[in-house]
Amino acid sequence: MADSPNCDLKSLSPLQLFERVTEQGEKVRALKAGKAPKDEIDAAVRMLLSLKLLYKTTTGQDYQAGLPPKDLVLINNGTTKEEEEDLVDPWNVQTSNAKGVDYDKLIVRFGSSKIDTDLINRIERATGQKPHHFLRRGIFFSHRDMDQVLDAYENKKPFYLYTGRGPSSQAMHVGHLIPFLFTKWLQEVFDVPLVIQLTDDEKYLWKDMTIEKAYEYARENAKDIIACGFDINKTFIFSDLDYLGTSAGFYKNVVKVQKHVTFNQVKGIFGFTDSDCIGKISFPAIQAAPSFSSSFPQIFNGKENIQCLIPCAIDQDPYFRMTRDVAPRIGQPKPALLHSVFFPALQGAQTKMSASDPNSSIFLTDTPKQIKTKINKHAFSGGRDTIEEHRKYGGNCDVDVSFMYLTFFLEDDDRLEQLKQAYTSGELLTGELKKVLIETMQPLVAAHQERRKQVTDEIVKQFMTPRKLAFEF
Amino acid sequence: MADSPNCDLKSLSPLQLFERVTEQGEKVRALKAGKAPKDEIDAAVRMLLSLKLLYKTTTGQDYQAGLPPKDLVLINNGTTKEEEEDLVDPWNVQTSNAKGVDYDKLIVRFGSSKIDTDLINRIERATGQKPHHFLRRGIFFSHRDMDQVLDAYENKKPFYLYTGRGPSSQAMHVGHLIPFLFTKWLQEVFDVPLVIQLTDDEKYLWKDMTIEKAYEYARENAKDIIACGFDINKTFIFSDLDYLGTSAGFYKNVVKVQKHVTFNQVKGIFGFTDSDCIGKISFPAIQAAPSFSSSFPQIFNGKENIQCLIPCAIDQDPYFRMTRDVAPRIGQPKPALLHSVFFPALQGAQTKMSASDPNSSIFLTDTPKQIKTKINKHAFSGGRDTIEEHRKYGGNCDVDVSFMYLTFFLEDDDRLEQLKQAYTSGELLTGELKKVLIETMQPLVAAHQERRKQVTDEIVKQFMTPRKLAFEF
Repeated sequence: MADSPNCDLKSLSPLQLFERVTEQGEKVRALKAGKAPKDEIDAAVRMLLSLKLLYKTTTGQDYQAGLPPKDLVLINNGTTKEEEEDLVDPWNVQTSNAKGVDYDKLIVRFGSSKIDTDLINRIERATGQKPHHFLRRGIFFSHRDMDQVLDAYENKKPFYLYTGRGPSSQAMHVGHLIPFLFTKWLQEVFDVPLVIQLTDDEKYLWKDMTIEKAYEYARENAKDIIACGFDINKTFIFSDLDYLGTSAGFYKNVVKVQKHVTFNQVKGIFGFTDSDCIGKISFPAIQAAPSFSSSFPQIFNGKENIQCLIPCAIDQDPYFRMTRDVAPRIGQPKPALLHSVFFPALQGAQTKMSASDPNSSIFLTDTPKQIKTKINKHAFSGGRDTIEEHRKYGGNCDVDVSFMYLTFFLEDDDRLEQLKQAYTSGELLTGELKKVLIETMQPLVAAHQERRKQVTDEIVKQFMTPRKLAFEF
Repeated sequence: MADSPNCDLKSLSPLQLFERVTEQGEKVRALKAGKAPKDEIDAAVRMLLSLKLLYKTTTGQDYQAGLPPKDLVLINNGTTKEEEEDLVDPWNVQTSNAKGVDYDKLIVRFGSSKIDTDLINRIERATGQKPHHFLRRGIFFSHRDMDQVLDAYENKKPFYLYTGRGPSSQAMHVGHLIPFLFTKWLQEVFDVPLVIQLTDDEKYLWKDMTIEKAYEYARENAKDIIACGFDINKTFIFSDLDYLGTSAGFYKNVVKVQKHVTFNQVKGIFGFTDSDCIGKISFPAIQAAPSFSSSFPQIFNGKENIQCLIPCAIDQDPYFRMTRDVAPRIGQPKPALLHSVFFPALQGAQTKMSASDPNSSIFLTDTPKQIKTKINKHAFSGGRDTIEEHRKYGGNCDVDVSFMYLTFFLEDDDRLEQLKQAYTSGELLTGELKKVLIETMQPLVAAHQERRKQVTDEIVKQFMTPRKLAFEF
């Protein structure tokens, strides 16, 4: 029908859709002003109403003239009901689907690229190493410009890795390790420098927390990060509160980014309002600055144009979309990105985990007994209601949190496949699957705790001291 | 009349007036909703309209529900016409009165205190020195909490001075020296540490200028500031772009201030809009931070509560009103202030001078010939149109720029008084008054140039190196 929105409209971004509604509204006014035939006006009005409805379904907001949509990612997850859309931004991840966020749709919406078999094979050829199971299993599923990083790497051009953490509490959970475990692997196979930002300033700005507390959390979290096994000669860990006051280059890059981003832009990207403090409003520039090698003159010998690669969870992408937008305008290369899926809460894949709910995940401080109890008590099961039904119909690995955790932490591909088949066929019961997870997580967490004990304050200090790393630039 | 706004309303601030209009609007709605007698509603509506008119006359803006006024200082300068109001904020100073801004009204509007004879006498008693002619002649005319600084000083409690400059071009004019000349005197008579902020980051954010250029201007301006004769053992000069990356304490204070100021607040105080870059929006915190001694741990031995006194031109007050509002909420003492009047442009006292217009003032780089030409050609005269009239009616020192400049730079009180009487009586002609100014400024500028030549890059480096000063804390 001519008067209903074209199907192509569904691929428009909320902002493009907003502009389309505005345009159509102007068209209606022009037709009315020009006293056009009633039919024509009616058709245009129907089109306008359809567009407004589509706008509301897509964004969850009513169309308001002059008020562009907030750039929240609202993904229609296979249904048309509003309450079943995914919401993804740096502070919220929500989906009503037990399988979790629809990542293919997220790729389309964010405009990033899927990490496909070709790219994984290319990484294998370039490094001569079997790709990490996070890559093989689609846990790192999306990227921006990873092919350019590989082009450069194959031409012996240097790059560096940048990742980070907001140190909101003393205890980290196993989900927090995902980007670090993967980054460690990248550092090993590519043999490149790594910088890790601890955004204690962000936590001070967002939470009811003193500067001293935020800084203390940063140092405590650094211990857990170091315990992942990073090479002290190739890794620089920094707290913003510390490093901004010791780096000649960092603040200059912060100011450069701050000059090229307006309040309108951060309002659109992060949903800030006029009541937010000016610290929050300017913070995105602090997370952007480590994407530029000139923020680390001590590592890169003052060189400005070393390519940066950022492994991070997909919810951090808005910061780096902003960074990539600014980069060419301040004469810097755009950082490349590798995005991971979210780590599910024990209670199910509907929400991102929270460090503030002790039962939402397995913490790095948990005892073997706590791990066992948590998994048995809280891990959402994809099994059937009775043993009989389970044996007959089998369990659902797509929604079973124990199985999801195993895809993250059980490295043996064959074993994982066996478990999947046995659970799906009903041969393996939920309790048995949980037992495998418990036996996987207990030694993993215990080993982490053992390594963490070796991380003295002196070692933390060394990692956090601005210095030259084991690379020549 | 009951239905016209009470005369007291004229003393309300724009924000108070805004609230009064809002209140009255609600009253009208309530009367209508409650079906009040027509007379009563009509009276309330008339009152509302009068209030809206008063609001517009006071603020220059139409009343808009929900949109509080921008906190620009609009002073009615003795007339009722809108175009004759004074506008004073950190980027604009405008008045249509040839005598310049009405400073008594500014004191009332800003809520600061007049520097009166009592205070000047008290400074004389405390320091044992004759008060500087900037104090005696009302050039520093307003203060906040100077009495508290004197209380502390008399009780042997330490304080420090903080002033600054936005280095927007290589050449400074004689007006730029005013705060520095006065600060130098304060430093000498009180014998206290001094920090001088060069806001090169601000200039980069506001102007079409590279970071490198802004930093270069900062160092060039530092030479002119040093040439005023500051004691190298008691003075720390810093560029923001430099010092933020070398101070453990500065960034922490910046973040603390940024956490306690919202966009709404800076919008109200500085008139920022959604289209402004996030750098501008967060900058006020950077100018606030040096008001706290913990921004300079190397000088104050990490002590947090040393009182700060800020001599500055009155247009910088909005920054420090904001700072004083935040200070108690972050556990810091409020900085005290001493405000100077604006230095008039050669063309007249209606506008603040601009470093970008070479004819608007006498520059520190001007040759004796340039000084002579500029004064003769551009200095606005308060003299009469013809010699005959001048002899008969006399000149007007209140609007004569040459005389104004002499009040700033001619230290001899008796001589100044003689000139005033001779000019007012018509005995002294404009050309003769200009000659006195030329003969005052030429040696003053030449001496400054001579001292500036002695300021080597090495000396600048010493002043700008974070270090302990000649004081124990």
